[in-house]
Amino acid sequence: MSTVTSRDPYPTRTVAHADLLPRLDPVVWGDASGGPLDPELVASYEEHGFLVLPGLLPPTTLQRIDDDLSALAADDSVKSLPRAVIEPGSNELRSLFEVHLGDDAIAGLATDPRLIDIARQLLGDDVYVHQSRVNLKPGFRGKEFYWHSDFETWHAEDGMPRMRAVSCSVLLTPNLAYNGPLLAIDRSHRWFVSCPGATPVDNYLSSLRRQDLGVPDDESLRELVRRGRITQCLGQPGTVVFFDCNLMHGSTGNMSPFERHNVFMVFNAVSNSLVAPFAAPAPRPEFIAARDVRPIRV
Amino acid sequence: MSTVTSRDPYPTRTVAHADLLPRLDPVVWGDASGGPLDPELVASYEEHGFLVLPGLLPPTTLQRIDDDLSALAADDSVKSLPRAVIEPGSNELRSLFEVHLGDDAIAGLATDPRLIDIARQLLGDDVYVHQSRVNLKPGFRGKEFYWHSDFETWHAEDGMPRMRAVSCSVLLTPNLAYNGPLLAIDRSHRWFVSCPGATPVDNYLSSLRRQDLGVPDDESLRELVRRGRITQCLGQPGTVVFFDCNLMHGSTGNMSPFERHNVFMVFNAVSNSLVAPFAAPAPRPEFIAARDVRPIRV
Repeated sequence: MSTVTSRDPYPTRTVAHADLLPRLDPVVWGDASGGPLDPELVASYEEHGFLVLPGLLPPTTLQRIDDDLSALAADDSVKSLPRAVIEPGSNELRSLFEVHLGDDAIAGLATDPRLIDIARQLLGDDVYVHQSRVNLKPGFRGKEFYWHSDFETWHAEDGMPRMRAVSCSVLLTPNLAYNGPLLAIDRSHRWFVSCPGATPVDNYLSSLRRQDLGVPDDESLRELVRRGRITQCLGQPGTVVFFDCNLMHGSTGNMSPFERHNVFMVFNAVSNSLVAPFAAPAPRPEFIAARDVRPIRV
Repeated sequence: MSTVTSRDPYPTRTVAHADLLPRLDPVVWGDASGGPLDPELVASYEEHGFLVLPGLLPPTTLQRIDDDLSALAADDSVKSLPRAVIEPGSNELRSLFEVHLGDDAIAGLATDPRLIDIARQLLGDDVYVHQSRVNLKPGFRGKEFYWHSDFETWHAEDGMPRMRAVSCSVLLTPNLAYNGPLLAIDRSHRWFVSCPGATPVDNYLSSLRRQDLGVPDDESLRELVRRGRITQCLGQPGTVVFFDCNLMHGSTGNMSPFERHNVFMVFNAVSNSLVAPFAAPAPRPEFIAARDVRPIRV
């Protein structure tokens, strides 16, 4: 007699204590041949969990995106949308979700072959946009984002089954050492930090401003930094940072006068589409976690 | 008939609007000959407002200081001293003032010729310690210090007449790009940012945790960055950063596991000793602003 048990390989918010678990999924799925990335770059992504590609997008594309962004930030009706996040302590737009729908230049990134073809190559599957947003970290008072694995939240609150998604951060303004750039823990994507706690109803309403759940513990972070190292992902506009859904990352505040504007697009493998949340009473809204899994056709 | 008017050249917290005023004092006082610094280094300090000197203190000195520091941080009675500042949201020691008195290795820095002789050379006078403290920016949750000119506060709240003081930051742990290092606006010491507002009674009780007054306005900061540039002062233990009392500086938070420990010693010219505060109802306590101006004898 055999029993088939199906235990969650990435338990979180259902556990009593923090833990550092091995990743059970590949980072690069399939043989990754026949895509735009050279084998060396694929191997680097697999090893480090991220890839910084300077100059992937040309100035003309960036200019059109910047124009869209200025229009969004100046539109007061945008700030009252459910998919908008306002900077704590001011009335400035901090993030806007679901920017891949529509017909402007920002939405155009979701079907841009310069992004999609790389995502398909790394994930070995057709892809769709799981989440998209613009992040406008203002000068002087831009707040920090503490260390987190996106996958931890997407698994617990959205029901993403496995680690088969890649995030793209498209740099629209210079990301400098001192304006709150993306900080990554190199190689941290190889382990899963299981977090104690339980997700309350409608947690996303507060967690988008300040995350209290799914926060990795000090000891796990210390150990991840011991196994890898902290890296700043810097670059000029047009740089795109591809990073694994389970890479531990964050960013410090921005005291400089230089705004940090990025577009964030998450591509998920269609075979990895969402199921019921693994540790939350109900799924989050579709503007945070899409359930339309039709593959992107360029 | 002649009238002698004596107007404060650095008005602040007595003004209705922020302003960017020219510095009226030298940066290097006298001819700066006959000191440990080469003329090139003196010229660099004069131009940029700071000087990073790697390896100024040897490992043996650092080890003794580190031992003192560990003892202080572990001593619960230290945390309840008026001259101690506790990290908001935790019970960890963040700063301890007046560490130049006593007979331990930290206090030894106040009479260390490797620091004093440089301070005397730059200020062209005998010096005394205006303020001293240890700053322990912990890992993970170390908070930012927003942009400020120390002189603005020392002038307004302590009665320091002119810009004739130099601060030394002695690095006890590595100061890395990503653990909240000192950020300086290169060349900003040449202008004074006059700040509106009025200092309330006992302002220091809250301002040491979070400064609400003497905060430079966005436009002045933008202009200072335009005239100079933002620089991170990085270094290994034993590095000493000398910086002018009016240099605009700050530091971002520390999300890394690596604690940032510095000893901070301010040397003031004896001829620049304190008078009545220029914009506060009463002087701050002596543990923040010393009034014993006997020159340091090595």
